[in-house]
Amino acid sequence: MNVKNVYDLIDTVAPFSIQMESDNSGLLVGSPSQEIHCILFALDVTQPVIDEAVALGAELIVTHHPLMFSAIRSLTDETYEGRLIRRLVRENISLISAHTNLDQAAGGINDTLAALCGLADVTGDAFFRSGILPEPMTARSFAAALEENLKTTVRVMAPEDRLIRRVGLCSGGGSDEWVRAAEAGCDAFVSGEIKHHFALAMADAGIAAFECGHFATEEPGLAAFAEALQNSLDHVECNVRVFVSAVSAYSFIRTP
Amino acid sequence: MNVKNVYDLIDTVAPFSIQMESDNSGLLVGSPSQEIHCILFALDVTQPVIDEAVALGAELIVTHHPLMFSAIRSLTDETYEGRLIRRLVRENISLISAHTNLDQAAGGINDTLAALCGLADVTGDAFFRSGILPEPMTARSFAAALEENLKTTVRVMAPEDRLIRRVGLCSGGGSDEWVRAAEAGCDAFVSGEIKHHFALAMADAGIAAFECGHFATEEPGLAAFAEALQNSLDHVECNVRVFVSAVSAYSFIRTP
Amino acid sequence: MNVKNVYDLIDTVAPFSIQMESDNSGLLVGSPSQEIHCILFALDVTQPVIDEAVALGAELIVTHHPLMFSAIRSLTDETYEGRLIRRLVRENISLISAHTNLDQAAGGINDTLAALCGLADVTGDAFFRSGILPEPMTARSFAAALEENLKTTVRVMAPEDRLIRRVGLCSGGGSDEWVRAAEAGCDAFVSGEIKHHFALAMADAGIAAFECGHFATEEPGLAAFAEALQNSLDHVECNVRVFVSAVSAYSFIRTP
Amino acid sequence: MNVKNVYDLIDTVAPFSIQMESDNSGLLVGSPSQEIHCILFALDVTQPVIDEAVALGAELIVTHHPLMFSAIRSLTDETYEGRLIRRLVRENISLISAHTNLDQAAGGINDTLAALCGLADVTGDAFFRSGILPEPMTARSFAAALEENLKTTVRVMAPEDRLIRRVGLCSGGGSDEWVRAAEAGCDAFVSGEIKHHFALAMADAGIAAFECGHFATEEPGLAAFAEALQNSLDHVECNVRVFVSAVSAYSFIRTP
Amino acid sequence: MNVKNVYDLIDTVAPFSIQMESDNSGLLVGSPSQEIHCILFALDVTQPVIDEAVALGAELIVTHHPLMFSAIRSLTDETYEGRLIRRLVRENISLISAHTNLDQAAGGINDTLAALCGLADVTGDAFFRSGILPEPMTARSFAAALEENLKTTVRVMAPEDRLIRRVGLCSGGGSDEWVRAAEAGCDAFVSGEIKHHFALAMADAGIAAFECGHFATEEPGLAAFAEALQNSLDHVECNVRVFVSAVSAYSFIRTP
Amino acid sequence: MNVKNVYDLIDTVAPFSIQMESDNSGLLVGSPSQEIHCILFALDVTQPVIDEAVALGAELIVTHHPLMFSAIRSLTDETYEGRLIRRLVRENISLISAHTNLDQAAGGINDTLAALCGLADVTGDAFFRSGILPEPMTARSFAAALEENLKTTVRVMAPEDRLIRRVGLCSGGGSDEWVRAAEAGCDAFVSGEIKHHFALAMADAGIAAFECGHFATEEPGLAAFAEALQNSLDHVECNVRVFVSAVSAYSFIRTP
Repeated sequence: MNVKNVYDLIDTVAPFSIQMESDNSGLLVGSPSQEIHCILFALDVTQPVIDEAVALGAELIVTHHPLMFSAIRSLTDETYEGRLIRRLVRENISLISAHTNLDQAAGGINDTLAALCGLADVTGDAFFRSGILPEPMTARSFAAALEENLKTTVRVMAPEDRLIRRVGLCSGGGSDEWVRAAEAGCDAFVSGEIKHHFALAMADAGIAAFECGHFATEEPGLAAFAEALQNSLDHVECNVRVFVSAVSAYSFIRTP
Repeated sequence: MNVKNVYDLIDTVAPFSIQMESDNSGLLVGSPSQEIHCILFALDVTQPVIDEAVALGAELIVTHHPLMFSAIRSLTDETYEGRLIRRLVRENISLISAHTNLDQAAGGINDTLAALCGLADVTGDAFFRSGILPEPMTARSFAAALEENLKTTVRVMAPEDRLIRRVGLCSGGGSDEWVRAAEAGCDAFVSGEIKHHFALAMADAGIAAFECGHFATEEPGLAAFAEALQNSLDHVECNVRVFVSAVSAYSFIRTP
Repeated sequence: MNVKNVYDLIDTVAPFSIQMESDNSGLLVGSPSQEIHCILFALDVTQPVIDEAVALGAELIVTHHPLMFSAIRSLTDETYEGRLIRRLVRENISLISAHTNLDQAAGGINDTLAALCGLADVTGDAFFRSGILPEPMTARSFAAALEENLKTTVRVMAPEDRLIRRVGLCSGGGSDEWVRAAEAGCDAFVSGEIKHHFALAMADAGIAAFECGHFATEEPGLAAFAEALQNSLDHVECNVRVFVSAVSAYSFIRTP
Repeated sequence: MNVKNVYDLIDTVAPFSIQMESDNSGLLVGSPSQEIHCILFALDVTQPVIDEAVALGAELIVTHHPLMFSAIRSLTDETYEGRLIRRLVRENISLISAHTNLDQAAGGINDTLAALCGLADVTGDAFFRSGILPEPMTARSFAAALEENLKTTVRVMAPEDRLIRRVGLCSGGGSDEWVRAAEAGCDAFVSGEIKHHFALAMADAGIAAFECGHFATEEPGLAAFAEALQNSLDHVECNVRVFVSAVSAYSFIRTP
Repeated sequence: MNVKNVYDLIDTVAPFSIQMESDNSGLLVGSPSQEIHCILFALDVTQPVIDEAVALGAELIVTHHPLMFSAIRSLTDETYEGRLIRRLVRENISLISAHTNLDQAAGGINDTLAALCGLADVTGDAFFRSGILPEPMTARSFAAALEENLKTTVRVMAPEDRLIRRVGLCSGGGSDEWVRAAEAGCDAFVSGEIKHHFALAMADAGIAAFECGHFATEEPGLAAFAEALQNSLDHVECNVRVFVSAVSAYSFIRTP
Repeated sequence: MNVKNVYDLIDTVAPFSIQMESDNSGLLVGSPSQEIHCILFALDVTQPVIDEAVALGAELIVTHHPLMFSAIRSLTDETYEGRLIRRLVRENISLISAHTNLDQAAGGINDTLAALCGLADVTGDAFFRSGILPEPMTARSFAAALEENLKTTVRVMAPEDRLIRRVGLCSGGGSDEWVRAAEAGCDAFVSGEIKHHFALAMADAGIAAFECGHFATEEPGLAAFAEALQNSLDHVECNVRVFVSAVSAYSFIRTP
């Protein structure tokens, strides 16, 4: 099992060809032919995540967010990204990012988020999902449920006693997807970051907005994807172990 | 006292000429010669804010965020913005917006935010301010203070026991200003919205990030600006009353 | 019968989807659901035209030339267009413009102009029409006929004794259509405005040019369109009256 | 006296460096070192104008309007412009064009037009001039005077009994200069071509518009410039004769 | 037989429609209806080539490289290209250029170059050809063969004892085609100009590079094309003679 | 002595701030704080050059041509450039490139080339130099001298018996500088690569062109620069050794 084999496995579930035009998903650092025995999944590459990979003996890191989103013309210790890439090279760790392809994939970031929102009858495609709550809830109660399920702080942009039954969502920073929530007749919209002018428009349209943080809406989906990959690898009986990073993107130890 | 006179007063404190190139601050709806007896300040124009203005008999609304940020080619009831502008015209209410000029102004949005963060020795210009806390605080304590002072939910992107003494800030959505916080040797950065990749960079640089919401970081500054304007008007003994909107941008009654 | 119904009727005859990319035809001001009992047609919205609409009790003005051809970022009494739009809103009058879609439509602006030029066997599409005069005429005689039929002053760019039999035309400002006249073997080309360098090229190609003014080449087509709409409305036995403006675009009473 | 010497003389009066950026004034065809004994002035190069030059033995044509306004990638008999340029080369005739530099020059196109409008106390710069009529006139009378002085047909866009005292003007196709007429407090604006939407704005502003044709507003200025050049040449006692074309731009013999 | 007939004959073999978008192949100077009795082929139009055409009585020059590759806005003796075009017009010589269409054509520039490289089993399309040498040769021997066949100086970018069997090529300045040579498994790549950074990449890929000069890689193909055209003309028994220029592009007599 | 110190020394002689806008000179790979005992100079980074650096124990390579001239979005073994950069990182070798700043510098690439051309009274700036030969030479003799001094093959674009006294030059690929040679009254122009259409223009202007190859016109200047740097370092008595690569850019051992 080498880096190229893992790339191909990911491509089966979340084809890199469906990524957005400006995205940079794919094999970003390393060598396709490198032999792999251990993989570490994380939302982002950070120095603590590389520490983890080194400690685990992982030859490959798989992240949601790419490096070199802006193309680079030098690779030195003078920049944050330069230090990360140079360390990956020196530690001989390859890096694959699955970003907007994984957002959209069946069983991907958004599908996991829909499950954690407690939704049933989930539909949608691309970057949007919607579904219904088994029982209508007030905005206050729904926010409390989100805080518990996503382990995050939720910012509510609606009266707290607003009743909610149909919920639309988009992970991360995609609050422009709220228009699809309006089209789908939703009472509420959940996202990681919600831009102020979209919140105003939602208020006008009678849609309650719940901003849950970029990390909290995406990390669970990446963890679920790691688990699915472990299952695939076990199925072919190769001896590759898959781990999910225990450090927050914001560089401290995550506590459940 | 007419709309043009109020425009000129605002221009004295927060000159419209310093607004960013893409901004749309200025007299957006109405007539310069309209006589004014009552002014309503609000972060945004919404239908509830127009309700308030009508109830108060205000002939002028002053907001932080402009309308027609994207230029328009029709004015109908089919769009959210069209409905707002048409109602302003029919109610004969003028609209002035003071956006990026007020962010930057002395005594403007960012200066008010600095005061609410409890900072001393405040310096900075344009869209950035920094200062020091009288006593060092942990991230947890500083977040609690922000929640109380700004009446908001704070999302902390740092270990909760990180010690903080020097704080940088930028109201609203300007988290790219974090680099100035780094240059100024800050331990923490406060803003309304913090983009995930800036939060990563801050974590790498050892800066704790506090995301307080777009509304909560800007509304107090607008209220302070309204109070200052009332004082100016009283000084010239004209009989104009100034009010601050009591409804949240997200369309429900704000409760202190 | 509401604004949307009238829009749909116009769309049947002159589909808005065929307008040129830079055009701004469509419902520009007002509300689709507004009830309509009286419609006023005019080449342009001007203050005298709005006076007329108010006097007639018209809830809808239909013009050939759009407003907001250049997109706007404010709506105040400081600009000519701002004053027009604000007055339409306050008088609760909707505005639909049918510009380049009506130029092209069967029975539209150009077809009416062809009839007024006295042409037989008219062919053409898009913005060009051509046909033959029943009897050949000199340029001098043809100009006199145009002056009478279009109630205008004609500027002749050709020797006055040039014989004319086949005529091409394009209403308004489309003198670049002269090349289609050349391809069609025309002796003459009629338009509202004729750019000097096109006149030179026509002289070289032996084509006599007749410049009849923007208003005179378009207004008759709009009046004919109003009449056709009245017929359609009578046919469905709704009680809507259609009028054509009696004031010139240049703000004085038109005298036949 | 060679082509370069004539170019330099023109440059003294109407510097080529002040032409508009998109313009193509200058030495367009020929050779700077060609000896000159006879010059023909015309508004445009046309085949009849070249016939005239050949008959007169002119080695140089000076026009107002340039050739190759759009840059070319071939030079064949297949295009109108190609035929003109090829014939100039074969007849060994050089071509200089003085376009937007001559419009602006003191004693240039616009100054001559102001004189023919009967204006006194003429002021202005760049492409605009204004002045007052010795006696106020009705629009009808002023139009009649323009028709006689400019030997053209005038299209009036105003009530015929409107009284006129202060007049602004811009030769050729520059009707956007009407805003300077408004600033200067003019009652009327004269130009060669007047775009419909500018005519509407002038009607709203109470300014009467007089459209006199591109040729008629520019040709007199060129003829005056030719006469001035003849005087300069006589002064230096060189033996160069200067002629003005007797054919209309529209390819027929002009009759005074 | 006129210029248009010759254009059509060339178009049959090397269709002008397949030229690159930025190219300027086609009838560039002259008249389609000009009668032709003698044609001169040359890589470029230069003054010595026009001398040759005049001496031969040629009414048409056919070149590989176009004039007016950059569009022009004047045609005077002040520029190199101006002098060439003006002389062609005065000598009444038409000019056709067949550039990137002839590069690609079957039997065109690249096919002739492949033959002169001694290649068998030639394949390829567009601007690339490859084939094999009957016997493997060292780089030193292959360079010597190229110098003799192409009458040029060859710059070798490889160890001189490198063994070569499969060769890729692109005439003129197209060294970016080396990637197709790599894909085709070539040991060597031949071109007119080889950019330094492509030479580095070829060295890394183990491909020997042979830079033979722009003129030397293209002129033989043009001569072969002239011969083919002569045959076509003879076949239709028209009395048109075809010559190939005997002067180098660099303005001196070529000696075989 | 660390990488930053060497960068500063180079900056003194050939300031990085004067590089062309599209260039990528500077510290491209590595760490400013890395300690340096041995430096290898080469025209380009290639695998054999890195072999050399490793063998010498060099911690820094200084090249003329930059890497990442086109910005990159991944760093893998799949590309030529990716393999080079990854190996530099793993071998812990820093890379500084001095490209268009060194071309222009006093004592830089072009000054060395002028000396090797045997020129006296050298003047010029930016990318151009000119001077005179002590004795006039024929093109043939001058080419022979260049071949010997630059150890290269020279392509002559002129009659071989043309007499040459004043010579202009630009190293590498800057043949557009020939116009400065024309202005300076040169008989000849020397460069690394000479584009065909510039060669035509030079022929027309009577200037003999000598194309000497990219590598041959630049490598001597880099070697001279290395020697100058060694002298500077010896002067400050630091213990840093400087070497010049002994392998050709085209990946084989250079033989003098």
